[in-house]
Amino acid sequence: MGELVVVGSVALDSVKTPFGAVEDALGGSATYFSYSASFFTKVRLVAVVGKDFSRDHLSRLEQRGVDLSGLQISEGQTFRWVGEYGYDLNEAHTLATHLNVFADFKPDLPQHYRSAPLIFLANIDPVLQREVLRQMKRPHLVALDTMNFWINGKRDALLSVLAEVDALVINDGEARMLTKEPNLIKAARTITSYGPKIVVIKRGEYGALMISNGRFFFTPAYPLESVFDPTGAGDTFAGGFMGMLAKSESLDEAALRRAIVYGSVMASFTVEDFSLNRLMRLEPEEIEARVQIFRDLVHFEI
Amino acid sequence: MGELVVVGSVALDSVKTPFGAVEDALGGSATYFSYSASFFTKVRLVAVVGKDFSRDHLSRLEQRGVDLSGLQISEGQTFRWVGEYGYDLNEAHTLATHLNVFADFKPDLPQHYRSAPLIFLANIDPVLQREVLRQMKRPHLVALDTMNFWINGKRDALLSVLAEVDALVINDGEARMLTKEPNLIKAARTITSYGPKIVVIKRGEYGALMISNGRFFFTPAYPLESVFDPTGAGDTFAGGFMGMLAKSESLDEAALRRAIVYGSVMASFTVEDFSLNRLMRLEPEEIEARVQIFRDLVHFEI
Repeated sequence: MGELVVVGSVALDSVKTPFGAVEDALGGSATYFSYSASFFTKVRLVAVVGKDFSRDHLSRLEQRGVDLSGLQISEGQTFRWVGEYGYDLNEAHTLATHLNVFADFKPDLPQHYRSAPLIFLANIDPVLQREVLRQMKRPHLVALDTMNFWINGKRDALLSVLAEVDALVINDGEARMLTKEPNLIKAARTITSYGPKIVVIKRGEYGALMISNGRFFFTPAYPLESVFDPTGAGDTFAGGFMGMLAKSESLDEAALRRAIVYGSVMASFTVEDFSLNRLMRLEPEEIEARVQIFRDLVHFEI
Repeated sequence: MGELVVVGSVALDSVKTPFGAVEDALGGSATYFSYSASFFTKVRLVAVVGKDFSRDHLSRLEQRGVDLSGLQISEGQTFRWVGEYGYDLNEAHTLATHLNVFADFKPDLPQHYRSAPLIFLANIDPVLQREVLRQMKRPHLVALDTMNFWINGKRDALLSVLAEVDALVINDGEARMLTKEPNLIKAARTITSYGPKIVVIKRGEYGALMISNGRFFFTPAYPLESVFDPTGAGDTFAGGFMGMLAKSESLDEAALRRAIVYGSVMASFTVEDFSLNRLMRLEPEEIEARVQIFRDLVHFEI
């Protein structure tokens, strides 16, 4: 399909898990997404950081070929998130969110971004997501992520942007919250009535499910014996998913399913270390090896 | 492989879910297991009921060809369970357990049961499970289920019987409790070091996973838009799993995986109504139809 634009956050995360801790480590939805997608396609990033953001972090993304011409560098501090996980790594406890320069973020897409065929609107204010969409010239595939904060706080704006979106990528708790429907299968189907014809629901250690054209597809999470830090797993998943679609010839059911598998495999690497540390030492052969193992994980014959 | 013996409970359940309630309905691990397995093989049941147990319930099982010559009918009341589920149908809240005649249950296998090639030791006291195993003549496959009550209360007896068992079928919380290992992949692998070379972990709405010969296999739960009552889902799953193995020519990896799929499909029917109501109106064609849908649910090509 071609190149891929992402708008979202670039952040500095301080995270504690039962296995260790990091402070002011590279994070943010657009960061994990871009780094993951860069293994499959050309990525163009839209975000904002403060003057305090390290040049070293930027060059990490540049080395992966990520286009940073849409990254604003503003007066002030970079967005910071402070979180903690217990032994149940499925749930993050947010201790602090400092929006800093992100509070006044006004995405402005460089001209050469606007004709990209695919765009991912990571978890930001739905009003901004719609504004970014207006700057794009008829993309082939628009996908969006969101969170409880916007579902509760800006429901109308969210539903309005959802009506213009092809794919929603969301976690299970948020899918239930958005639809007020405890049954996840019904929730997924309900979301397709809001606009997106493709709904991808992330279930953490339980994998992912997708509904597209009325058909369901399920994948487990790649089985790992050591999970260090789940931060960024969902955005890495979305990056692998959208990156593989960008690399595909078409957006048919087979391509969508393949993309879900690659997204799951990419997420499995992120959680093996803090921040983007595991992704930064990832080799393409390792991705293919896990995809092959994945096939065997679910294969059966009747 | 041939016929299948099951030892477990036959009970009268009073269950309340957000969608309705039943009182003194037919239940118990051996009941769900037998009924489910009877779609695939000859089942011989070992259990105990009281004099109050309805003749009508017995004939339901007899109609499915279940051999009840191992069912003791004792003076006193049948085992009763009272439970409730909230909107999160994953967790049962036990309100009361009246063991009644089950408290003095001493399984005694009829002679013609003892040479069966497969046996399922449903969730009962591990001391009794071992006693039953001693009555069997070298079965080809011994599988066992257990629960938190025995894991905490009779750990040594449980580990002792596990050492003689080929397959453990257990839910995820119990697998973690048994191994004291929060990571489920590690927990499954750890259990194989206790004896069972096959470990099947039931995850409710998240499906099931199996480790056998060091290889993992994952299946989702069959996607349902209406779940009425999850009671008996795990035992129905085990019945479908063991029933299909009994029907198979061999116990190789392909047969094990196929059996997991059939177990998942059988469980998907049980939860659609209270007690065994859905199973009682189930047609073999409906099973095959869901198995076909199951294939499409997880199929992808790289």
